[in-house]
Formats: sequence, C-alpha cells, structure tokens
Amino acid sequence: MSQKPDVPVLINGQWQCSASDVGFQAFNPATGNAMPEVYPVSNWKDCEAVLNSAADAAAQLRKIPASQIAAFLEAYAQQIESAKADLVEIANQETALPKSPRLGDVELPRTTGQLRQAAAAATTGSWALPVIDTKANIRSCYLPIGPVCVFGPNNFPFAFNSVAGGDFAAAIAAGNPVIGKANTSHPGTTRKLAELAQAAVLETGLPRGTVQLLYRVSHDEGARLVSDSRLGAIGYTGSRHAGLVLKSAADRVGKPIYLELSSVNPVVLLPGALAERGNDIITEFVTSVLMGTGQFCTNPGLIVALRSAETEAFVQAVVGKFNEVSPGTLLSSGVKKSLTAAISVLTTAGAKLLCGGNAVDGQCSVQNTLLEVNADKFIAQPETFQTEAFGNASLVVIAEDVEQMRHVVACLEGNLTGCIYSANSGSDDHAYDVIAGELTQRVGRVLNDKMPTGVAVSSAMNHGGPFPATGHPGFTAVGIPASLLRFGKLTCFDAVRGHRLPWLLQDKNPTGKTYRMVDLQWTTADV
Amino acid sequence: MSQKPDVPVLINGQWQCSASDVGFQAFNPATGNAMPEVYPVSNWKDCEAVLNSAADAAAQLRKIPASQIAAFLEAYAQQIESAKADLVEIANQETALPKSPRLGDVELPRTTGQLRQAAAAATTGSWALPVIDTKANIRSCYLPIGPVCVFGPNNFPFAFNSVAGGDFAAAIAAGNPVIGKANTSHPGTTRKLAELAQAAVLETGLPRGTVQLLYRVSHDEGARLVSDSRLGAIGYTGSRHAGLVLKSAADRVGKPIYLELSSVNPVVLLPGALAERGNDIITEFVTSVLMGTGQFCTNPGLIVALRSAETEAFVQAVVGKFNEVSPGTLLSSGVKKSLTAAISVLTTAGAKLLCGGNAVDGQCSVQNTLLEVNADKFIAQPETFQTEAFGNASLVVIAEDVEQMRHVVACLEGNLTGCIYSANSGSDDHAYDVIAGELTQRVGRVLNDKMPTGVAVSSAMNHGGPFPATGHPGFTAVGIPASLLRFGKLTCFDAVRGHRLPWLLQDKNPTGKTYRMVDLQWTTADV
Repeated sequence: MSQKPDVPVLINGQWQCSASDVGFQAFNPATGNAMPEVYPVSNWKDCEAVLNSAADAAAQLRKIPASQIAAFLEAYAQQIESAKADLVEIANQETALPKSPRLGDVELPRTTGQLRQAAAAATTGSWALPVIDTKANIRSCYLPIGPVCVFGPNNFPFAFNSVAGGDFAAAIAAGNPVIGKANTSHPGTTRKLAELAQAAVLETGLPRGTVQLLYRVSHDEGARLVSDSRLGAIGYTGSRHAGLVLKSAADRVGKPIYLELSSVNPVVLLPGALAERGNDIITEFVTSVLMGTGQFCTNPGLIVALRSAETEAFVQAVVGKFNEVSPGTLLSSGVKKSLTAAISVLTTAGAKLLCGGNAVDGQCSVQNTLLEVNADKFIAQPETFQTEAFGNASLVVIAEDVEQMRHVVACLEGNLTGCIYSANSGSDDHAYDVIAGELTQRVGRVLNDKMPTGVAVSSAMNHGGPFPATGHPGFTAVGIPASLLRFGKLTCFDAVRGHRLPWLLQDKNPTGKTYRMVDLQWTTADV
Repeated sequence: MSQKPDVPVLINGQWQCSASDVGFQAFNPATGNAMPEVYPVSNWKDCEAVLNSAADAAAQLRKIPASQIAAFLEAYAQQIESAKADLVEIANQETALPKSPRLGDVELPRTTGQLRQAAAAATTGSWALPVIDTKANIRSCYLPIGPVCVFGPNNFPFAFNSVAGGDFAAAIAAGNPVIGKANTSHPGTTRKLAELAQAAVLETGLPRGTVQLLYRVSHDEGARLVSDSRLGAIGYTGSRHAGLVLKSAADRVGKPIYLELSSVNPVVLLPGALAERGNDIITEFVTSVLMGTGQFCTNPGLIVALRSAETEAFVQAVVGKFNEVSPGTLLSSGVKKSLTAAISVLTTAGAKLLCGGNAVDGQCSVQNTLLEVNADKFIAQPETFQTEAFGNASLVVIAEDVEQMRHVVACLEGNLTGCIYSANSGSDDHAYDVIAGELTQRVGRVLNDKMPTGVAVSSAMNHGGPFPATGHPGFTAVGIPASLLRFGKLTCFDAVRGHRLPWLLQDKNPTGKTYRMVDLQWTTADV
C-alpha cells in the first residue's frame, strides 16, 4: 500500500488522478503475482468530488426521458459485448475464474441481459408501481431515490460488478446516478467496465456524473460516504463484517442500505428422496458445491439429513468425489484465509472433518471439504455451526428424526435460499410440511428438488431473505423489475395540477403499455 | 408510578394481571385530574409471554384462510360501531378531543373504514404482489413477516391506535398477530378497543394471541422487545427521540421498523397565489393549523413566502385570527411542555414571536402561536428552525426572492408533506418548477393549493417520506393495499411442486379477481 497510484479514478465524467497518494495492487490468484497497476485508495477529497457530481447528475437525470436512460443501458450492453475478449482476459487474470464457459459464455451474457432487461423496465416505467385514485385525485409512484453507491462483491466480476451488475442496472434504470466502489480483488475489470460505461454515457448524452468509480476507501471514509446526505441509497454485496459497519453508519442517518451479507443455504434431504434417487442428488450436490470453487452466495453450505444407511452412503459418495476432484483456485488469498478459518471454527466446535480441510501449499486453494456434525451439537451452538465457509466446503448435519430436523431448521438464521428434496412417491410429504413450515420463514427462496446455485434473472426471483442474509426481508437484489424498487422513493401527488405530474401519473398512459393501478385495477388504459 | 396496577393486560387471549407491580395513571387533560384506573408498566415477564403467544399465533395464522382474517377485521369494525358511545366517551376523557364531529363522526368511521378496506385487501391478496414466471417456474409474493409490535401515537386514539388503527389493520390483513403497546395518554381507550378486538377474535376463531395488549414498558425493555427474534417487524408513530432509540435497537438485529417520527410540513406560498386568493389561503391555513389544536403529524408548521405587502397582509391576518380564537386543549401536559419548549428553541435561535408563545395558566393549553424568521437566519441554522412545534404553532420564513426560497427548501429535512400554492393565472409557473424540483425530493406527498392536514385513506396515498419523517422513504403508513407491504416478507418459490405453493401462487387464480403479474403482465386470469 505504499506505492503511489498510477491509475486514474472516474470523477464527473473525467478520468483523473486521485487526490490520494496511497495505492494498492491486485493479485493474480492463479500465479500469486501482483498485477502491475497501482490503484488509488481514495481519500475524502475524492469522495466529496464524486458526491457533488452525483448530486448534479441526479438533478439532471430527473428531467431526462426514461427512454434516454434505457438507450444508455442498451448502448452499454453493446459496448460490453464489443469488448468481450478484453474483459474476459482481465477478469480471468484477476479472479482465476475460467474464461469459458464461466466468464465469457455465462457471466458476461448474464450481465448484458440484465442491462437490457433494466432498459426495458425503464422504458415502460411499470416497475415504479404507479397508482391513481381518480375519485380523490391522488396519484403516487416510485421516483428516483438519489445517487446510489454500489459496493460490488469479489465473486462476480461482471454480473454483480459495482459499475455493471445487478445493483448498477437497477439503480440506473430507476433514474439514479451510480458511484461504483470497485471490489479490490478485480479493480482492472471494474476499470475496463467503467470505461465502457463512460463511452455509453457520452454516446447517449447522459449527465457527466451518471457513472463514477473509486477503487477503494478506508473503512472510516466508507462509513462517512454511506451516511452522506447527498446519497440516496447504498447497495452492498460482500462480507458480513464490513457490511454491518456500513449498515450501522447508514442506519444512524436513516439512509436505505440494501445488503447481501452471508448465507449457508440449507438443503434438507428427506429420506424418501435419498432412497429414490440418491445418486442423482450426490451428483447435483457435488456439482453445486464445487462449481466456481463454491464461491457463490447461494452455495449449499449446510446439508440436513436423517441418520440412515442412505445418508451414510450419500456422505461417503460425496467424500469420494471431493477427494477425486482437484480443488479450484480461489478468488484471492483473503478467501483462502477466511475459508480455512471458518473450517477451523467448525471443527473446533465439534464438527468432524470427513475430507479436506487444509489449504493447498503454494496455491490459492483449499481442499474440497466436507464436515459433519450431529443435530444435538448443532442445536447447542447454532450460531457457530452457521459460520459461513465461503468456498468449496459444506457441513452435513445428521438428525435422529424429523422432529429433530425441524428443530435444526428452527435454529437457522435468515438465509437467501432453503431447499427440500423429497420423494416423488409422496412418502416424504408429511415431513415436507413440517420442515417447510419452519424453513419458509427463514429464507428468501424455497426450492424443491434442486440445488440453490442457479439464480435466474426472473421477474419472480427473490435474491434476498431475512437478516443476516440481507438487511431487509422485503427486497430482492436480482430479478427485474422488482430489484429497481430498492432505488425508488415513494412519492404521492395530491391534487397536483395535471401538467405538473410525472410522466407515469398523467391521465394518458405514457407508453400505452405501462401498467398502472387505477382505482384498484391494474390497467394499461388512459385515465 | 408507585400505585399497584389494577387493570389487566391482554396476553394469549386472557385478560390477566401483569407480572409487574408498577403502575401509572392517565390524566384527563381538560380537567387535569388523574383517571381512577392504575395501568401496569409491564416488565420483561409480560413481554416474554406476549412474544411466545404471538409466535404461536403467527404459526397458526399462516394456515388460516385469508377470508377468515378478513372476517375478523369486519367483525371488529362492527364491534367498534356497536360500542361507539362508550369509545367516544372514554377517548374524549383521555384526550380532550371533541366528541363530535372529531371522535364520533370523523375518526371512528375512518377507523372502521380502514379495517374494512384491510379486510377487502386480505380477501383478494392482491396486496402481496404475486409474480409468476411460467417459463422458469419461479413464483413469488409477500408472505406474513411475523408478529408485529405496534406503538401508537397520542394524537389519534382510534385511527392510529395500536390495536385498531392503520398499522394494526395492515399488520393483521397481511396475516400477522399484533402486540399492541398502548399510548400511555389513552390507555383506557386502548383497553376498550382491545376488548372489542378480543370479542371479534373469539367470534371468528382466530388464534388466542392474534391481538395482545401491554400499556407501557420501560425504555430498556422496549428496546429489548423490538429486537427480539420472535418479532417480525415494528410499527411506531410518535416522538423522534423515543423512535430513534427503538430504531437503533431494531437496526442492530436487522429487524424492520417502520417509524413515523416528525415533520414540519412546509407550505410554500408563491406570490401570485397570495395576490389572487390571499383571503382563502388565510382561512385554509388558520383552519389547518388550529384543527385538533394543531396536533397532527401533517400540521403545516412551516410557511415559506416572499417578502411582500401581500405576505405581510397574510401574516397580519393570521395573527388576528390566532388572537381571536381560544386555544384548544392539548392532549397532555407532556404536549404542552414540549410545545412551549419548541417555541422557546425557535425564539432563542432568533425567530420573532408574532403572537402567542405562552402556556395558558391552569389549562392544558398554549396560546395560538405564529413565529417569523428571515430566510438568511433559517439557512444559517436549518436544523434548529425545523424543530417540530407539535401543536397550534407555525413558523413563517420570509425569503427575499425565489432563489432564496429554493435555498430554504433545499435545506429541509425529510418531511411527510410539502405544499405549493401557486396562481391559477400561470404567473407562478416558473417559480413552481424551481421550488417543486427541490421539494419533491424531500417529502412523501406533494400537494397543490391545499393544506396537508387531510390524509385520505386512498390507494394512492403516501403517508411517509425521507428520514427523519420516517425510517425509510419507500413505504406508506396510510393507504390500502400499499401499507400492508411493510408487514410482508418477500418469498420466492423455485420449482416448488404445485400443490405446495401458497394459495396466491397456484395455477388457478385463487379468487378469480386477484391481480398477479404473470410473465410481466398484470392479470386476474389463471395460469
């Protein structure tokens, strides 16, 4: 951190030197080598500058037609596709995620797809839930909340990137400028994306401060940034510890902060399912937990099963496969360190290590790891046994009967997902009802008979859940149009003269296909 | 507080002695006399009991058809109407609000109307925004968030009562049990309402813990209560100080808390409007600020006008009327004390007292009060001059020109409402645009040419706004169905077998008239 930065930040539409002379480097996790660029750790002067520019941009964006914002999102998607080879190369160097299919064929198209879905949402405006009460002449809808600061995670260099991912797309489509705070493990990818975004900003004539980028700020200045009055809201995806520091700062000033923090994503294997199709479930589980070296927020980190010969066979087969497959490269030495630390917390508390557990010398890897604990121990220390082991590791909890299984589920904290595998024959149906009743309250998404790692960009998706999976159980980070609501401010117009109303609330339906709730009926008609 | 309580609390469907032997009394503000009943200040044992019963009730309510919950709300409305004479009598004694028209003819019908609208919302379930993606077979909607603790305010003994008002109706209609924390200035009214609610619970077969009531808890135990894991969410309407203490406790554990804290409700009088119809505006303003002795959350506490002869005439006329009318009785000696304290803060900071300002000896009243300050002073100390003077008082800010008026508005904190009066001739239109651009960002509801004190129970109402008016700018406390969303938890069902889906998400439209977003189209059709 002592080198002088040589990479500019993006402030007010200009790539310019940071006001800070403190720098940091990224590392190639596959080689362990530092990347040549030195990125700035921004100081408050940089923060001031982006906040001022974002406030200006927010004021201008309020007057710009939604179609122009949609055009930006479309142009940006196009820019990303044109730069695909470069982006995949840089992201691969910074994350060790495979170029194909992962980066180039899955994550990049997902990212451009999200931007285009966000463009479509911006165009109709239906996301803003316009409501018109003709009798009282009261009308309301969501309006842009103000500049959004997005903190991106390490595990999706494109699809959750602070200047290209889901939070970005949602914040922009809702009419807000974005201040991106790069994830420090892939600053080069983020820089490249911001260059493409900036090109699209120029191409479509959006305000200069629509997209800005800082790479890193100190913890103190991060807290100051998220509580600044010029900001409208914050989107954060990352570690629980850092997220809670930011949440505390934002909460104190009543600033909406949407967090995605941590989740162990329980998977309950009911006995009939294991008996019916144990081999399929083994394959699905191993694929899910090792994909991307397990570095997904919806990684199945907790399996709950009954003590039985079938469960024993399941566990042994997984151990066999975990031992067979070489562990993947982790995103950073930080991930490696926290994964081994989490495994150590679990074993110290009494979990039995069935395979793996150790860091691989000379590589940014940890052995594929399976742990086991009985339900009594789990129930005695539920918080400890829910320690997230982010990476290629999972903990199996063995319950003696369905009632104890229910008790385990009742001890769970909030999670993003919860899965139940049950027999097709119907033999698990009673157990399903018992377990699902507890599970549904504790997760954002309930799955049947499939692993949780696929998070479809669907209008019905909820990538959210009760605390501490997120900061509020009413919002989703994935899925358009609902994800845009996080970045809207509900605003009502009471007896406001017709020509002064926002476009979505005027008598005439603004696009002919915008859904509005008029006198309690959803319709695309004029008033 | 040293007397032993003689009034029972409502726990788990039983009126029973509190575990506490600390009591308090309510006062009749019109006479200054203590009411005879001694209400308990509940201790943690009472809190434990209501939390356990509420958790049981929540589990049972999840399995009860929405139509049964609706039947309860209807039955309760009927009970309230049958007990109207008693309710009005008790509420009048505890609040000094007039029996007619206020309590009996306005607030009571508003309350039953809200309960019936909530029943209708529960019946169709459209409030829960069901979304179905048929291609991906992913479905989502809002489900009950869990037990809701409601802290009611002092100023609406019926319509915002913790066991009968808007938060109560919304929480119940969304499928949650309610723990009511009575406002301590009208415990008798709240007790009577809870008796009626309990009768309706029995009549319609809802779980025992659906409605429970405590009268008071210590600050420490209030903080412990709102952060308890058995609770789903909290609704609070009251003072900013107490609300922020609860918010801090709830935020620490990621518990959604919906607060309505304070608001000065700026009213901007543009010069053309004053010239055109100054007399009408004087009447509207005086009526609005003195109605209910100004004890409304949407009381117009801040007038912004340009320095002019018309403004001077407006101010003089208001002073004349304020001096003419006898000040009303305030809700409690606490309100009297905080109102005089707020006036003192404003005068100490440099506001000029145009009339009133003093407490009335021997009465629970403060003189009708108008203050004035110039915009320079306001802009120099905007926080101080936004001190809420809850009651029959208002502050006029005099700006030198429209740009300074804009600056005043740009200094405003978040408010529930913001009004602009402008000329019908169009002469204020430019000024309107300048002011509205700033004001809209800072308020939950924008009004044209009318005072903010009417809060219609409309589907399009937003009784909300940016912090510190509320805790989150995305939610409304009034208006059905939107107010129910505060008490829902977004839940997604991914590949969940059809017969296991919640009623709202099954292929067949559950009522034939429930709106669901199916493949991005709102429809009442089956899938």
